[in-house]
Amino acid sequence: MSNEIEIGVGKRARGVFGFDDVAIVPDRRTRDHRDVSVSWEIDAFTFDTPFIAAPMDSVVSPTSAITIGKLGGLGVLDLEGLWTRYENPEVLLAEIAELPAERATKRMQEIYSAPIIPELVTARIAEIRAAGVPVAAALSPQRTQELSDTVVAAGVDIFVIRGTTVSAEHVSKESEPLNLKKFIYELDVPVIVGGAATYTTALHLMRTGAAGVLVGFGGGAASNTRATLGIHAPMATAVADVAGARRDYMVESGGRYVQVIADGGLGSSGDIVKAIACGADAVMLGTTLARATDAPGHGYHWGAEAYHPQVPRGRRVEVGTVGTFEEIFHGPASSSEGTANLTGALRRAMATTGYSDLKEFQRAPLVTRRSM
Amino acid sequence: MSNEIEIGVGKRARGVFGFDDVAIVPDRRTRDHRDVSVSWEIDAFTFDTPFIAAPMDSVVSPTSAITIGKLGGLGVLDLEGLWTRYENPEVLLAEIAELPAERATKRMQEIYSAPIIPELVTARIAEIRAAGVPVAAALSPQRTQELSDTVVAAGVDIFVIRGTTVSAEHVSKESEPLNLKKFIYELDVPVIVGGAATYTTALHLMRTGAAGVLVGFGGGAASNTRATLGIHAPMATAVADVAGARRDYMVESGGRYVQVIADGGLGSSGDIVKAIACGADAVMLGTTLARATDAPGHGYHWGAEAYHPQVPRGRRVEVGTVGTFEEIFHGPASSSEGTANLTGALRRAMATTGYSDLKEFQRAPLVTRRSM
Amino acid sequence: MSNEIEIGVGKRARGVFGFDDVAIVPDRRTRDHRDVSVSWEIDAFTFDTPFIAAPMDSVVSPTSAITIGKLGGLGVLDLEGLWTRYENPEVLLAEIAELPAERATKRMQEIYSAPIIPELVTARIAEIRAAGVPVAAALSPQRTQELSDTVVAAGVDIFVIRGTTVSAEHVSKESEPLNLKKFIYELDVPVIVGGAATYTTALHLMRTGAAGVLVGFGGGAASNTRATLGIHAPMATAVADVAGARRDYMVESGGRYVQVIADGGLGSSGDIVKAIACGADAVMLGTTLARATDAPGHGYHWGAEAYHPQVPRGRRVEVGTVGTFEEIFHGPASSSEGTANLTGALRRAMATTGYSDLKEFQRAPLVTRRSM
Amino acid sequence: MSNEIEIGVGKRARGVFGFDDVAIVPDRRTRDHRDVSVSWEIDAFTFDTPFIAAPMDSVVSPTSAITIGKLGGLGVLDLEGLWTRYENPEVLLAEIAELPAERATKRMQEIYSAPIIPELVTARIAEIRAAGVPVAAALSPQRTQELSDTVVAAGVDIFVIRGTTVSAEHVSKESEPLNLKKFIYELDVPVIVGGAATYTTALHLMRTGAAGVLVGFGGGAASNTRATLGIHAPMATAVADVAGARRDYMVESGGRYVQVIADGGLGSSGDIVKAIACGADAVMLGTTLARATDAPGHGYHWGAEAYHPQVPRGRRVEVGTVGTFEEIFHGPASSSEGTANLTGALRRAMATTGYSDLKEFQRAPLVTRRSM
Repeated sequence: MSNEIEIGVGKRARGVFGFDDVAIVPDRRTRDHRDVSVSWEIDAFTFDTPFIAAPMDSVVSPTSAITIGKLGGLGVLDLEGLWTRYENPEVLLAEIAELPAERATKRMQEIYSAPIIPELVTARIAEIRAAGVPVAAALSPQRTQELSDTVVAAGVDIFVIRGTTVSAEHVSKESEPLNLKKFIYELDVPVIVGGAATYTTALHLMRTGAAGVLVGFGGGAASNTRATLGIHAPMATAVADVAGARRDYMVESGGRYVQVIADGGLGSSGDIVKAIACGADAVMLGTTLARATDAPGHGYHWGAEAYHPQVPRGRRVEVGTVGTFEEIFHGPASSSEGTANLTGALRRAMATTGYSDLKEFQRAPLVTRRSM
Repeated sequence: MSNEIEIGVGKRARGVFGFDDVAIVPDRRTRDHRDVSVSWEIDAFTFDTPFIAAPMDSVVSPTSAITIGKLGGLGVLDLEGLWTRYENPEVLLAEIAELPAERATKRMQEIYSAPIIPELVTARIAEIRAAGVPVAAALSPQRTQELSDTVVAAGVDIFVIRGTTVSAEHVSKESEPLNLKKFIYELDVPVIVGGAATYTTALHLMRTGAAGVLVGFGGGAASNTRATLGIHAPMATAVADVAGARRDYMVESGGRYVQVIADGGLGSSGDIVKAIACGADAVMLGTTLARATDAPGHGYHWGAEAYHPQVPRGRRVEVGTVGTFEEIFHGPASSSEGTANLTGALRRAMATTGYSDLKEFQRAPLVTRRSM
Repeated sequence: MSNEIEIGVGKRARGVFGFDDVAIVPDRRTRDHRDVSVSWEIDAFTFDTPFIAAPMDSVVSPTSAITIGKLGGLGVLDLEGLWTRYENPEVLLAEIAELPAERATKRMQEIYSAPIIPELVTARIAEIRAAGVPVAAALSPQRTQELSDTVVAAGVDIFVIRGTTVSAEHVSKESEPLNLKKFIYELDVPVIVGGAATYTTALHLMRTGAAGVLVGFGGGAASNTRATLGIHAPMATAVADVAGARRDYMVESGGRYVQVIADGGLGSSGDIVKAIACGADAVMLGTTLARATDAPGHGYHWGAEAYHPQVPRGRRVEVGTVGTFEEIFHGPASSSEGTANLTGALRRAMATTGYSDLKEFQRAPLVTRRSM
Repeated sequence: MSNEIEIGVGKRARGVFGFDDVAIVPDRRTRDHRDVSVSWEIDAFTFDTPFIAAPMDSVVSPTSAITIGKLGGLGVLDLEGLWTRYENPEVLLAEIAELPAERATKRMQEIYSAPIIPELVTARIAEIRAAGVPVAAALSPQRTQELSDTVVAAGVDIFVIRGTTVSAEHVSKESEPLNLKKFIYELDVPVIVGGAATYTTALHLMRTGAAGVLVGFGGGAASNTRATLGIHAPMATAVADVAGARRDYMVESGGRYVQVIADGGLGSSGDIVKAIACGADAVMLGTTLARATDAPGHGYHWGAEAYHPQVPRGRRVEVGTVGTFEEIFHGPASSSEGTANLTGALRRAMATTGYSDLKEFQRAPLVTRRSM
């Protein structure tokens, strides 16, 4: 852990970098963009794109999960969101999109206080399953023990455990925390777990047997953890650190390759390119997909932090719309903001710098701009 | 004092950091937020929260001092403010809140030119005392000798001497400066003194026998010392330096632990988290508490710098309101700006990073973002 | 390649600089600005100014190429723009200038989908040739093989091959890439080729026999490659790197001097000054010349990236107008934004720092500002 | 010259700092602000304040030079401005203040094209002289030979030669440059000369026998040399470098102390404080004094760069008004922007950090903020 600087007498800080702080540069070789592969594999599943839709109500509904699956991505349904609390959440999604900003947090706290109904968990999963796309669903660590049997019985292909921070060692005097290692060992489906923002946390999560680790801590556009909690994990460093942990864990485990999935702060195709160049295998997208005209958020985006009953540390953000899920995934783009044709942009970035697949591209050289 | 850089031929500058320049990162362990303690002790007093309300008329009146005390904090009354100059300051507080910006400085200079009335000092302290909460009151170093007998006789529990800069060695040809060491030695109540912004100043103040040192120099939202005086003491470095002085003074004094209190530049719960991670034991809050609907400032905030008769180096700032003192202290928050539920946010930041009390949390690792 | 910093575990990035990050400083000697030469030579051609107009429809038409040639510059006609797709492009240029922003990309994608007509290539080149100024025209690498015979037969003096990135080694399974070395060897006219953004790419391009190398990768005001592709090549570093490659190639080739031409990110005369101080021999200007009242873009500016059919990574920008081509080249300027009298500004910058010609000025010392 | 960084292959840049990049910090000792001296000496003259009004028409007229002299400063009349070109410039000053922004540069180019009338030079100097304050007047290096006899005969006390850059070695084929060393040697009055922005230039100017050196290169609010010429000399570094040259020249000359005068970029009292802490003896103020209600600029400010006939590299700026010259010099201030009571602010900054005179204060320690 080099790159430290003295903050004051006896206190040091490590220099860290966000996606905005780095870029890739073209080099000696270029490549035909049609010769570039952006496919991605986890466990027995192969996807045409490395794009995972984040378990957020503004992005993934049963319907949008199916759309995303057919486009070559993976939609993860939030099993603690509106779809498992309400029979007909569409009316609430529409209401949220119309709330005035100053009342949004309070009203969302109310809406999300409704109980989770296990039967709805089963029904939502079945609906996606019926469409023939891979089924993924997410729970927070707090709810995992309570609902996991229901979830597995309903037939998920990939189980996601996602919190702002998930560690392999959670200490509590009041409740028995989830034993991740035991849980994952006993589960029949591959587990993706996170967020992890550091080398050590990630290494511990890898040792639990997870198939993939989500990298991030509240870095998304809908999050505000930096102002509320003083916590900030700039993503370029976080992804590189976790990729470093993956490499070391491969040696330690005799060759097990854990997927590194960047989660948060990926607002444009340029950010996705950088995430992979920092070492990610795939990316979990929130804002970027909430901008789909057929996303459930109606041009708005929010996560669980936005309606936390005591310490909301995120907000509902108006992200607008830029095109269909299909245009966002595969183009054509009719704007140049890096918000549509994500595969096209990724492919061209790789072609321009001469790389042919995602694993190779993880080694792309980076630059960082020095300010004047 | 490392981390120096050459500014020009023969002139060097030390690299320093503000709260905005640093953040904390989650690590290997997480903890149940209900298992986290945020209590704070000074001398014989224990407080449920490490929040001290700054001696500023926009924050502390006798009434708000009582409210704050009951919420687990400590309100420090400014004995050179309106409450000791006027029998009924409410009308003036209301007037200040309604002054147009361009006339505010001038009118405040007039209002604050009224003389301090010792009888009012006695009465205000008695009013707080009667409510059964710890009583704290502040004087500037210039007024301390003149009024301290009155103050102690009136029955303060904690005596605060606060100026923009307070040094242990003040040189003057015109007036005999306050001998801090002698003053503190002879006083029966614990003394908090500051602001100090460097290791050396803080060490000297600790040697006077002070129970606590205020860290800061005009860094708050209501201050403008950087433009007027060219003086700037970014708080992350200042707090770390003074915490370093505290550690060295403990060795030197054979174990006396002086409280380090960050004072200024704490606009959000995230800043409070960072102050403690830099080494503070408690924080003195201005802006953050001036935003209470039941604060005396009516949504405005100002300090003594704003009405300095010759060189005003601060201003009245409109801070708005975000909730009651209770909501600001303990929530629930209905926004995500880090302006309410300060204890909840601090608790969660500590839980997320695996710490169980404030002293432990002072060792939390920091990161600093490197710009592109 | 020093100046590297650790981004995360096992991942490093090189620190790079844009023109905004550097400046030149006056030194011991000053010089009469009338004694300063800003002339520039490539192959057998000498130009009074080092200003090349970029092959973009908003800057170079046959008419403006002639104007620019007479002012001492070189206008490069884009042979894949409107002038070779339409008999009368003026009406389309006017339409583009009037498109509302939200429809601009889509409509330009349509307009530029018309086929290139070889007879128009011949006619446009003949028109410029007839005016007696040096004739330069540009093709993308993809089109070079298809149209180069037509272009050479039509009589160009300088052949420009320009893409966002041109490498000496393009890999494709689907089409036989342009063999630059063979192509340049067999051509009778000097070739300028680029963009190249790194030492290695530039060195490879120099080895193909190119007379000049364009330095840049989408850094101009009309480009958006950073958001879309995550690629960024700050120009001060890029120019210095390519100038370094030129120096090494001179040694390797026994003395062949390849022209280094900065292309992109040159929005003001100050940027031009810096490009040359970083090692450029000449500059290719887009935005700066699109601001001419007699430029074809009617106060708007765009490049080929703006109408890419699948992944547009640039946009039409409103740049306004600041004076005629003559005023932009030679003044007088009636504003102080560095947008007019480019030769006057360059001359005065060189005079103020004591240099007498462009080659000498490439050695001017630089400063970079360290942020507080 | 340490503190260098590699920009690209074979090109390095020196890290430099502006006033915004540095600050002073309070330290161990504080001092009564009444015990602080801010007086300044040059040659046989002693001034109560280190404030010199810049030779700019918006700041110094014969009338304002007298006002400034009586307040303890030194007003330098520009002998190439309106007062020596027109019998009654008041009407033109009023017109300039009313010009719409888009026509200002052009109209000022016309106004300032009128010839300089030697008789007016004599008359203006006589008018100031008659008031009993020290008389200072400025010429550019180009005009110095032509007009210096007139100026000296008219009776100046201090002769100022001021250009954007003045070097001791000006090279010209077309005209014989001013031989500074010979000129200064033969003159009976002390000469202040500049701007110089580097160690070497300053050292050479000191060797000509100058009594003072102006430090700066177009850094003021009314200047735009960075955009037009690519030249930038951040002031903290420039002042420290020239102060370093002064120290070395003292050794070389056996004790001659040359005054270092910061000129440019001094928009607030905080900047003045920093200039002196970087090593300046005095400051030349433009913007700061143009804000006087009794300044000739009527709330506007401009320098000679704004009306350069070919390459204007500055502009007329609306600076507004903040009080009389007396309030700006000595207060009281009724705002906290650092624009009034400059002596009060300087005095308090020195008192807060424990210094008693300007020479001592040149050794004050600096900090620079490291960005996150």
